[in-house]
Amino acid sequence: MNKITANVEALRKHMLNENLQAYYISCTDPHSSEYLPDYWKTREFISGFTGSYGEILITMDKAILWTDTRYFIQAEDQLAGTCFEMHKLRVSDAIPFDQWIVQNLPKNAKIGTSAITLPYSTASHLQKQLAEAEMELVYVPDLLDKIWDKRPALPADKVFELDEAIAGISRTNKLTRIAEEIEKAGADMQIVSMLDELAWCFNLRGSDVAYNPVFIAYAIIGKDKNVLFLEHEKISEELKARLEGGEIIVLPYNEIFTYLNQLEGQKVLLDAGTVNTAIVNAISGSCEIVFGNSVPTKLKAIKNPVEIEGFKSAMVKDGVALLKFHFWLKNAIGKEEITEYNVGRKIAEFRAEQKDFMGESFPPIVGYKAHGAMVHLIVGEENAFPVEKEGILLFDSGGQYLHGTTDITRTVVVGEITDQQKKDFTLVLKGMIALTTVQFPAGTKGCHLDILARKALWDHGLNYGHGTGHGVGHFLAVHEGPMAIRAEFNENTIVPGMVMSNEPAMYRTGKYGLRTENMMVCVEKEKTEFAQFYGFETLSLCPIEKKLLDVELLTKEEISWLNNYHQKVREILSPLIESELIGYLNDLTSPV
Amino acid sequence: MNKITANVEALRKHMLNENLQAYYISCTDPHSSEYLPDYWKTREFISGFTGSYGEILITMDKAILWTDTRYFIQAEDQLAGTCFEMHKLRVSDAIPFDQWIVQNLPKNAKIGTSAITLPYSTASHLQKQLAEAEMELVYVPDLLDKIWDKRPALPADKVFELDEAIAGISRTNKLTRIAEEIEKAGADMQIVSMLDELAWCFNLRGSDVAYNPVFIAYAIIGKDKNVLFLEHEKISEELKARLEGGEIIVLPYNEIFTYLNQLEGQKVLLDAGTVNTAIVNAISGSCEIVFGNSVPTKLKAIKNPVEIEGFKSAMVKDGVALLKFHFWLKNAIGKEEITEYNVGRKIAEFRAEQKDFMGESFPPIVGYKAHGAMVHLIVGEENAFPVEKEGILLFDSGGQYLHGTTDITRTVVVGEITDQQKKDFTLVLKGMIALTTVQFPAGTKGCHLDILARKALWDHGLNYGHGTGHGVGHFLAVHEGPMAIRAEFNENTIVPGMVMSNEPAMYRTGKYGLRTENMMVCVEKEKTEFAQFYGFETLSLCPIEKKLLDVELLTKEEISWLNNYHQKVREILSPLIESELIGYLNDLTSPV
Repeated sequence: MNKITANVEALRKHMLNENLQAYYISCTDPHSSEYLPDYWKTREFISGFTGSYGEILITMDKAILWTDTRYFIQAEDQLAGTCFEMHKLRVSDAIPFDQWIVQNLPKNAKIGTSAITLPYSTASHLQKQLAEAEMELVYVPDLLDKIWDKRPALPADKVFELDEAIAGISRTNKLTRIAEEIEKAGADMQIVSMLDELAWCFNLRGSDVAYNPVFIAYAIIGKDKNVLFLEHEKISEELKARLEGGEIIVLPYNEIFTYLNQLEGQKVLLDAGTVNTAIVNAISGSCEIVFGNSVPTKLKAIKNPVEIEGFKSAMVKDGVALLKFHFWLKNAIGKEEITEYNVGRKIAEFRAEQKDFMGESFPPIVGYKAHGAMVHLIVGEENAFPVEKEGILLFDSGGQYLHGTTDITRTVVVGEITDQQKKDFTLVLKGMIALTTVQFPAGTKGCHLDILARKALWDHGLNYGHGTGHGVGHFLAVHEGPMAIRAEFNENTIVPGMVMSNEPAMYRTGKYGLRTENMMVCVEKEKTEFAQFYGFETLSLCPIEKKLLDVELLTKEEISWLNNYHQKVREILSPLIESELIGYLNDLTSPV
Repeated sequence: MNKITANVEALRKHMLNENLQAYYISCTDPHSSEYLPDYWKTREFISGFTGSYGEILITMDKAILWTDTRYFIQAEDQLAGTCFEMHKLRVSDAIPFDQWIVQNLPKNAKIGTSAITLPYSTASHLQKQLAEAEMELVYVPDLLDKIWDKRPALPADKVFELDEAIAGISRTNKLTRIAEEIEKAGADMQIVSMLDELAWCFNLRGSDVAYNPVFIAYAIIGKDKNVLFLEHEKISEELKARLEGGEIIVLPYNEIFTYLNQLEGQKVLLDAGTVNTAIVNAISGSCEIVFGNSVPTKLKAIKNPVEIEGFKSAMVKDGVALLKFHFWLKNAIGKEEITEYNVGRKIAEFRAEQKDFMGESFPPIVGYKAHGAMVHLIVGEENAFPVEKEGILLFDSGGQYLHGTTDITRTVVVGEITDQQKKDFTLVLKGMIALTTVQFPAGTKGCHLDILARKALWDHGLNYGHGTGHGVGHFLAVHEGPMAIRAEFNENTIVPGMVMSNEPAMYRTGKYGLRTENMMVCVEKEKTEFAQFYGFETLSLCPIEKKLLDVELLTKEEISWLNNYHQKVREILSPLIESELIGYLNDLTSPV
């Protein structure tokens, strides 16, 4: 019996003790995080599967992992030889775990789970479904704790302050502003549990998870009192004193449960989609829960002028790093042995040479040939394709700088290319330019703008299967809400200060993928008697591969946009690069 | 004391009898109709106000009419000298009637209303609001009945059959298809109460209200039984026999209440937004109500090939009529005395010359100078502007033909025009062409497409304040759902067979308005590995005023679209017009 199967057997003994017919592992953490600290990598521990998405259900005779199209091959590989079976999601006959439970478990079955890793809205939905099937959702202590030998500890890394000169607004001003908005929402306080929200509210950063400079904590923010719940070992005495001087009470991480239990007659605002069920259940019965959107999420999406300046500096550094990378690639291709994996490493190395670089903002997505068409594929050393002197190469990567986060995709030529690749690339670029240059009235939402990035593709019977734009945090998460540019309805309007990606793409399954992504900031445009108009200013500074253009497909205006963009890139980057790169940059950015 | 005030006093006596502190008049009919039969013109009877929108509340010391921006001037005029005051809606400090009640009436106040003119969703919402304020919503018999001397009778006009050769699908096939969809929605039957739905379901038409060829009735449609509730005097013995031969039970209009009361253990589907509260309250307690979208509304939006052919014939007739009108206008302007009002009459006269013309599909909107910028203004004889030999004239009108309904807007030159008018007109046309020519993947909704009609305007800081496209019925209501092309989210996707308007516009307050509107049908386009694509085919056949073009603003593709459109108009209309019009049509449609 292998280790995985042995662990599942051990878990079943504990399930028997708790009188459970099934145990559900949501495979997230108490903070609805995208990246998890090792302590919460429950999916990997119990199943051996290392993909970024999957849910697990263990019954007395089955162990099932649900995952989606991105991971079918990987999951099959990694689950081979274990007691696990894979169930597919996002296929036409998919049966998700909740439906599977209802169809396969007997009436009166008790399904156990840990409340602390279950967002409250998911729990409510699940509870209702199971009740309708005459089954029961039971909250039990995290059973993995009993069988996980040498479970990693929660990180004890130190939290550090982000200077007001970088954050742009003082901690006190932020907390006051947040409290005002909470009051407007009809509440006395809000429970803040997402880690990037916490970092933003308190002008603090940490290093508890990969790619995101966040730290594990909870907070309660309100007009009368601000409480930060985090382990005292994570902050220095000086920082603690400074927080307390700013009238912030600092209590140990797990004290939040007692604290909520002892509240009296308060109106507590929380976002049921992100706050975990254990937290919600801990709120004293004398309190009223106000379900609503999280205030810090809305506020932090609108960057202040200092943050925007920080983003701009980050773009300059990113631009230099990417130019160096591109120059290296051009010279190395066909000479050195290059794989998708070491392309990603090389980009990170060039970024690391830049001042205030704090790490990558996500694992680089480098796609050559068929891999380029697998949108979410992150290759490892073992499955990386060699990059040869033929066709095109897509790379999507980003950096965390102390003063801003970057996210950029370019597709470049590494050898002989086809007319179809040029046409695809040009249509994608037309979409990116259309979204970049739009002027729209206040009140416009992302679902209205999305078509601009797709229309040129639609005209030729093409399309891409993902959204067009996401928010980007300021030295925080590379994906942040609440707004988005995609077809799905999202009530949040796009307003000045929002920093977003613009990333149309085209994927030819089995052949290649291409994507061009810039970051933009929403800015004010003219105000007329008809409306206040907004638009976008491009932040990213990196040449767009001219060799991939089918110039015939571009309008005069599009060509002029591209030439102006390249001129700006050249003017800003030229003074910062070594002489051997100047000629190369000039070539890449010369007018079409 | 004038008649209005006397009526209000009389009403108050009945309110006292019923122990009511206020009486609310929703001013609609039991079928959520846009146009009302005289019997249900309650607003006009009690207040004297003839606008198309307003709600009324009578308390012991106040009589209030709520209406919106369109009617402020008209309402002030018409209420002068009565006991009524006007309260404004759609202004920043608007207090709608429900809020007004909560703020102004005492606790425990009883607010009476007639359940039969209140859609169930409105009633539920109102009930909840009043309960929170410790007030009560009380359903009482229609109190107007007691004071309305010579209240008009409900129309007794005969219902007639629409031949299957025109309707495209037999009554039996429609009812079977509807029943299948009702079953899919988890119900045994649906209550159908909107008049255009009823007409469509049964292939019947009537003449009970202005502009819409509908008749007053209810129906219950389901897999076991179809019941049509309408007054027997409204159908001939032959038709009754034919309906009954098709296994349709015909019962008197008001029998629906007893019928619903006697149902046992059925699942009854209804659309709470359109079915009135008296109907919902009549459903036997042993039944389960399934709230959902109305099945006939969804089915009738997708026109069958015969209906589409009917629309096309209607467009030819409309095209001839409008060409004759335009020719008349050109020759009469500056010679005869012309007003906005008689422009509307003249258009109707030319339409009336066409075979199978059944009437106008809505009151024509004719706007000259400042009136053109008042989107919803329908001028009467008394307030019509004279049309002089200067500037532009907008006319929005439509016809009911036995085989299709039309809705078209054109803006034409009547004298000297300005560069601004040309620019505005051309930007509007660019929007109309962009929406006409888009190719979009299955799944696309109206809120995604709306921007296409606006983008050219937005680029110049302009916009218009209404939606871009609505569904059009087949010899039925000129406005029909469930889909729409506008910024507001609407879950219904745009699919082949839907017939819709495309009407971007520009309004310069106090100066002029311009709008260009064509009707289109959604059609299948290419199917690729990426999606099934759809697009639009233009139905309307009427020249677009070339004199108003600023050709510099048009792309090659736009000019070519316009020339092709004009060629089609010319080719189809030429054989049908007298020789004196041929030259004129050739001028209007010659290539740009």
